[in-house]
Amino acid sequence: MELTLEELAKQVGGKVSGDPLATVNSVATIKNATSGQITFLSLKSLRKFLAQTKATAVILKAEDQQNCPVNSIVVENPLLAYAKIAGILSPVNSATPSIHPTAVIDSTAKIDKTASVAAHAVIGKGSQVGKNCQLGAHCYIGENVSLDEGVHIYNNVSVMDNCTIGARTIIHPGAVIGADGFGNANDQGKWVKIPQIGAVTIGSDVEIGANTTIDCGAIENTVIGNGVRLDNLIQIAHNVEIGDHTAIAAMTAVAGSTVIGQYCMIGGTVAISGHLHIADRVTLTGRTTVLQSIKEAGVYSSCAPLVENSKWHKNYIQMKKLDELAKRLKQLEKLTSPTDKN
Amino acid sequence: MELTLEELAKQVGGKVSGDPLATVNSVATIKNATSGQITFLSLKSLRKFLAQTKATAVILKAEDQQNCPVNSIVVENPLLAYAKIAGILSPVNSATPSIHPTAVIDSTAKIDKTASVAAHAVIGKGSQVGKNCQLGAHCYIGENVSLDEGVHIYNNVSVMDNCTIGARTIIHPGAVIGADGFGNANDQGKWVKIPQIGAVTIGSDVEIGANTTIDCGAIENTVIGNGVRLDNLIQIAHNVEIGDHTAIAAMTAVAGSTVIGQYCMIGGTVAISGHLHIADRVTLTGRTTVLQSIKEAGVYSSCAPLVENSKWHKNYIQMKKLDELAKRLKQLEKLTSPTDKN
Amino acid sequence: MELTLEELAKQVGGKVSGDPLATVNSVATIKNATSGQITFLSLKSLRKFLAQTKATAVILKAEDQQNCPVNSIVVENPLLAYAKIAGILSPVNSATPSIHPTAVIDSTAKIDKTASVAAHAVIGKGSQVGKNCQLGAHCYIGENVSLDEGVHIYNNVSVMDNCTIGARTIIHPGAVIGADGFGNANDQGKWVKIPQIGAVTIGSDVEIGANTTIDCGAIENTVIGNGVRLDNLIQIAHNVEIGDHTAIAAMTAVAGSTVIGQYCMIGGTVAISGHLHIADRVTLTGRTTVLQSIKEAGVYSSCAPLVENSKWHKNYIQMKKLDELAKRLKQLEKLTSPTDKN
Repeated sequence: MELTLEELAKQVGGKVSGDPLATVNSVATIKNATSGQITFLSLKSLRKFLAQTKATAVILKAEDQQNCPVNSIVVENPLLAYAKIAGILSPVNSATPSIHPTAVIDSTAKIDKTASVAAHAVIGKGSQVGKNCQLGAHCYIGENVSLDEGVHIYNNVSVMDNCTIGARTIIHPGAVIGADGFGNANDQGKWVKIPQIGAVTIGSDVEIGANTTIDCGAIENTVIGNGVRLDNLIQIAHNVEIGDHTAIAAMTAVAGSTVIGQYCMIGGTVAISGHLHIADRVTLTGRTTVLQSIKEAGVYSSCAPLVENSKWHKNYIQMKKLDELAKRLKQLEKLTSPTDKN
Repeated sequence: MELTLEELAKQVGGKVSGDPLATVNSVATIKNATSGQITFLSLKSLRKFLAQTKATAVILKAEDQQNCPVNSIVVENPLLAYAKIAGILSPVNSATPSIHPTAVIDSTAKIDKTASVAAHAVIGKGSQVGKNCQLGAHCYIGENVSLDEGVHIYNNVSVMDNCTIGARTIIHPGAVIGADGFGNANDQGKWVKIPQIGAVTIGSDVEIGANTTIDCGAIENTVIGNGVRLDNLIQIAHNVEIGDHTAIAAMTAVAGSTVIGQYCMIGGTVAISGHLHIADRVTLTGRTTVLQSIKEAGVYSSCAPLVENSKWHKNYIQMKKLDELAKRLKQLEKLTSPTDKN
Repeated sequence: MELTLEELAKQVGGKVSGDPLATVNSVATIKNATSGQITFLSLKSLRKFLAQTKATAVILKAEDQQNCPVNSIVVENPLLAYAKIAGILSPVNSATPSIHPTAVIDSTAKIDKTASVAAHAVIGKGSQVGKNCQLGAHCYIGENVSLDEGVHIYNNVSVMDNCTIGARTIIHPGAVIGADGFGNANDQGKWVKIPQIGAVTIGSDVEIGANTTIDCGAIENTVIGNGVRLDNLIQIAHNVEIGDHTAIAAMTAVAGSTVIGQYCMIGGTVAISGHLHIADRVTLTGRTTVLQSIKEAGVYSSCAPLVENSKWHKNYIQMKKLDELAKRLKQLEKLTSPTDKN
């Protein structure tokens, strides 16, 4: 596909600086783009590459335009404009409607005629696959699953019984949706399994990363809102609820029954305890540990700082007796100012 | 299935308060239960819903009985009684004995005639599948694997060569049992693979979560005891041993050759170093890091506290020089009380 | 296979002490080895088992030789020598060249006649499978994938479109190579997917653990160097580059665009932020969190220490106000020595 800058600028509400009829056919990085390619400048750390770029055009902010040696499309949010333009120039191949002869589909499942089902896929009783859905190789769709239109299930994904997935949601390889939650009652030391009879409800326009697991609810459903983004290797326990448009980076774990608000941004390797409420618009930086509910929007952090190992050993010893250290300080304050303190 | 409270109370050793002949057919949450349903009250935080419950009956402790507006089954451990009653009212569908024609089973494998093997399953040479086993779609059972009776292997599970799995053990989708441990010897900077020739031995009545990985032993076997519970996305390295009835929550990693005792309760996102011994009945709260053996039963924790990001930045700076801070405090103590201190 | 100590010593550049014609046929642990077996002594903590070993021979360092009651092969690095000898005595079964009839292979894919492709494998358009490659059951090889000779892909592995894998690389079950990176642009609160059009380039002699995920690049490729070792359940985000011979233990997460040097040793459950540079020969101990680039080789750590839960609660309170505590200390220093400090 070859498009003029004028056409692309129109798609993203931008303004062309330079030749509006120059054409591009693909995207590239600012460092390595060549003629016929369009790139973008979003991170300040990449500004140093602007002067030497060989791209035909750069998507950038007005403030960077004067330093751009080539054509540009000026926008407020270059990353967003790039996302849209890359989507136009590099469209995802949509599979041809078809059902591979090796797929095993229960006779009571309803597959829309515009859907595609790849080799060795398995679809259980009573499940429904909507318009333009794409189901990858070896994917497993259990019983009574509902996939709304345009859902893209990659290879090796498991969607267990009774789960519901909204329109245009994308699920990457190896993700497991709706496996049993971790529910156990203790009987004199031994564990008795608590049946996990809920399912998972996933909204529209969600994206779920590779090997991520979202457990089914214990009684009622685990709920993932619309527009949610989950990265790879994330654990969402039973009965968690995640609000619309919240994004969570890789390897974060959310324990059971916790409710996360809308528009949250949660970093990678975060751990969130169970039965908490996280307010809307909370940002948790990477590796944060959350043991209590967060009632107000804002940016929160935890995690211990990196130092040289030898120094860490020494700090570690003090960290183990920090309470004692604080008491000693208090004692000293009393001593040095006996009339002011208690 | 419709049962009287009297029948259910008998199954769980409880006492009916109200109409023993009232019947229920399903379970529900205390908040949303309606007529014909039974619920339970276990968490104190849910007590507020008791007065308005529309359930036909509530499983609860004696102390809550007087505030219950409907029938109840009084027990000592409502969660345990609920687990049993839910198991009765919501039985897991047991698959009909059958071998799907697309399954690929080596001619030397022995599959009990009461077992079920789903579509596209693969079973290798010399493996044995016991009575009433259920093997899910796309599961992979390697060579010389032994599955005792009633084992339930979900779809997409991998059980590698020579592994042994005890009766009634359940393995959820995507789990990998017996892949090579991480064994490498260093040869002037380059890594040489150490063959991993052990297997994994899993006891009876174990449950293993989705996408969890349990590596085979380097020489001898990795061992998971009876009644163990492992949540999703857990890493168990080679030659780890986990004692009977220990439970581990999601995304915890246990490094090689560590031995964990019986009846331990290990939270999510815990990290345990290799070659350690963890005593019986140790509880590790979520996100704990264990770098040394734990010799006595008890509750242990680590993890840094969450604060507002701005405050965390300031604390972080001090945490990096905590040893220096402690030294300054000591110096001050000497100064203020020079005759008492060294 | 039965070999003399003389033959084995020759393979590993070692020296036999005792009977060079004694034969062994398998490896075992120093504790449980019996006649006909060879073992090794590498960890000091296992020295106590040397005096009682029933092995036919022990691979050990010169310093341990005098305490060895049986034959020995004396070498500088017993673990390395063991790795090589175990590889000789316990060779991995190489599959017979064959393509299972249930494999689904696109007509444009080129499979070398010496390769083996197991049941239900799927190989897409234009992909190339080199000499002696082994592809496991249910593995998924996308379009235009290139596997160099001797690549071993285990069952359930996904290798997505356009990825390249170097000679003799091993990928364990459930790993996902080349799924979309986590790229999203924010449009007034809603996320817009940034197309991920790069792939993953993996070098030669690499090993990748079970259920590990390596995302494709956003524009250019994610790159894994030669001889790299990745354990299980690791997350490698888009455009990460990992230098040759670096090893990373389980459940570590590396965020997007971070470049890790050669010969690094990175422990388990480490978290590394995005857009950082980690120098060559950096060691990160387990559970370290890296928020800034590391410019010099060395050993670095973070992570909070484990203590009894009650003590941790008290320390936790002080950790939350560590900056305040440091200010109080400074104030006290001023008070006690007003003429020396500011």
